[in-house]
Amino acid sequence: MNAVEQLTEDQRARLAWARIAEPDDRTARAMIAEHGVIEALEMARAGYSGRPRASAERFASRLKDLDVERDVGITNKVGARVLFPADPCWPQGVDGLDYVPWCLWVKAKDSASLASMCHRSAAIVGARASTSYGEYVASELAAGLASRDFTVVSGAAFGIDAAAHRGALACDGDTVAVVAGGVDRPYPAAHASLLARIAEVGAIVSEVPPGSAPTRSRFLARNRLIAAMSDGTVIVEAGLRSGSRSTVTHAVKLLRPVAAVPGPITSMVSAGCHEEVRSGRAELVTDAAEVAELFGSIGGDLAPAKQGELRLGDDLDPDAFRVWQAMPTRRSTTVDALTQVAGLSVADVMGALGQLEAAQMARRGAQGWMRCTP
Amino acid sequence: MNAVEQLTEDQRARLAWARIAEPDDRTARAMIAEHGVIEALEMARAGYSGRPRASAERFASRLKDLDVERDVGITNKVGARVLFPADPCWPQGVDGLDYVPWCLWVKAKDSASLASMCHRSAAIVGARASTSYGEYVASELAAGLASRDFTVVSGAAFGIDAAAHRGALACDGDTVAVVAGGVDRPYPAAHASLLARIAEVGAIVSEVPPGSAPTRSRFLARNRLIAAMSDGTVIVEAGLRSGSRSTVTHAVKLLRPVAAVPGPITSMVSAGCHEEVRSGRAELVTDAAEVAELFGSIGGDLAPAKQGELRLGDDLDPDAFRVWQAMPTRRSTTVDALTQVAGLSVADVMGALGQLEAAQMARRGAQGWMRCTP
Repeated sequence: MNAVEQLTEDQRARLAWARIAEPDDRTARAMIAEHGVIEALEMARAGYSGRPRASAERFASRLKDLDVERDVGITNKVGARVLFPADPCWPQGVDGLDYVPWCLWVKAKDSASLASMCHRSAAIVGARASTSYGEYVASELAAGLASRDFTVVSGAAFGIDAAAHRGALACDGDTVAVVAGGVDRPYPAAHASLLARIAEVGAIVSEVPPGSAPTRSRFLARNRLIAAMSDGTVIVEAGLRSGSRSTVTHAVKLLRPVAAVPGPITSMVSAGCHEEVRSGRAELVTDAAEVAELFGSIGGDLAPAKQGELRLGDDLDPDAFRVWQAMPTRRSTTVDALTQVAGLSVADVMGALGQLEAAQMARRGAQGWMRCTP
Repeated sequence: MNAVEQLTEDQRARLAWARIAEPDDRTARAMIAEHGVIEALEMARAGYSGRPRASAERFASRLKDLDVERDVGITNKVGARVLFPADPCWPQGVDGLDYVPWCLWVKAKDSASLASMCHRSAAIVGARASTSYGEYVASELAAGLASRDFTVVSGAAFGIDAAAHRGALACDGDTVAVVAGGVDRPYPAAHASLLARIAEVGAIVSEVPPGSAPTRSRFLARNRLIAAMSDGTVIVEAGLRSGSRSTVTHAVKLLRPVAAVPGPITSMVSAGCHEEVRSGRAELVTDAAEVAELFGSIGGDLAPAKQGELRLGDDLDPDAFRVWQAMPTRRSTTVDALTQVAGLSVADVMGALGQLEAAQMARRGAQGWMRCTP
């Protein structure tokens, strides 16, 4: 809960900016960078941007409706809390962004835990029009990462996002939904109960005030928060023009690792993932262990090497294996025949047969040597 | 056709070595490297390797049966021809190998064309236990490469290999099968007619004499020839322990490019491909154009950039797009309302509407502005 009387002038100005300017508004960002939130707000009120070729007139229409006190009241009413930079709960990852949010609305049982949840975290993002393959993979990755104590950050959209949140929830993991509209506006509406559950055990986060609609430009701006609030981003399924590729762009800019899950090359919804690998922006990953290795602590999250199944004969030396290969499977054979087929000397064949006998892969019968399976 | 009388002593010695020593026989390779094929053969006959801890006795059993004249007769009888290094038809790519073949048997309508076929060539290899996805992809890649004048080199095995040969044959492309046994021994037997067709329009190549069985060690040795006879190797589907990964190892050693086709991470038969990409040995590819770019001439085989479908509004400037996004879809709206929703000044909105009108994406009606689709 925030009480409006306890807010500093700086904080009140931040709430005002969040209401009157889009997160990616260049004029607002330039004004604030130069003059600070308080003075820039006064300039906006005066319709003066202080910059050549930039008009502050665009803020006029929203300034008319501005009521910070009402916004604080609504925030409390919807059960959210506003965080400001330098708050101990503030997710510090976002401070690396070009456009740091002016403030963040958090809807969570324990909004204080947001910073710690983001401390070890993985964004899992992807297409809304996903396939069942992609959803299965997103869910498995999320569960695997949650079981390795990663918080799963995503955008609560249809498809990959929802599968990722659900995968984390399914194994009691932490999960954070960063949304493009207000934290009180479940979007898509069909995910109202999913978002309610996320608010109960994890957190819903937004940089626009309660009541705000999730517009296209806010989705794109939101993507930078997903990248910034996570140690790395995994892209699970994405078409060539998927919005989730913008999340990758932000992660790359923030020097955070990016992973991409491959899929069939016949699936256009994997084409964006493949392009990310080809361009070198993303590393190909095939399971949660590999993602953890990439995003986790150096040396602390090593993925086991992929070995494939062990096969009969793996531990034999080459000559012994050659003799074993040269033995017929259904009848016995002689040492002379083996020298011919394997192209080895009598001594080599005898040595090999000894080794095979010890490994129970050959035995001596009345008619000669037999191949056998231990 | 080779006539035995026309063979030089060097060539006769090479035929002998092909008969008595496996392609990967270290003792034989070391003896020949030091003494040349002729003297080394005399040493083998004397049972003397000239090397510490290496016995030449292993050649004794096969030397007993050696009959070069008979081998030349059989070669002619099966319609094959033997090539020796420095022959104009010799595929020069193999000269970069540690173990250059002593000679090569070629079964082809025009064995003289082997060198030119390998001049622009791609190996397509992979699992025998492939999926229909993998076979479809191998076949499409082969057809795409053949239509770009690449010769498709593979191993005629079940699965990916056969699909690759068939894809090339289907569009009248050149294709070369490098086999592990003699060129007269169709293996697997079920591919007898496929191999017959390859011999008609392309070539079957082997480094072991006619009649030789395709043993495991010969498959592994054969893989190095596939890599060496191609400008690059594509691996389509491969389990973690697939033999086709040894082809990749050889290609890497020869500094030839390697491409890998991704697949679902749930498919173990794509796991080897994914590992090759992860290890950096292979580049991920998704179509024939990308393979051609990687294997073909620098600048001459550029793949078109992957763009994704064009969308409405791609060529608008950001403000115009923002206004268009802010317009309701089913009713008209006012400039004032648009300044509020889009967060832009009146002048910005007017400018944007002008641009949208010109693009037929908005029109002015009696009640205000309407969004429309051109």
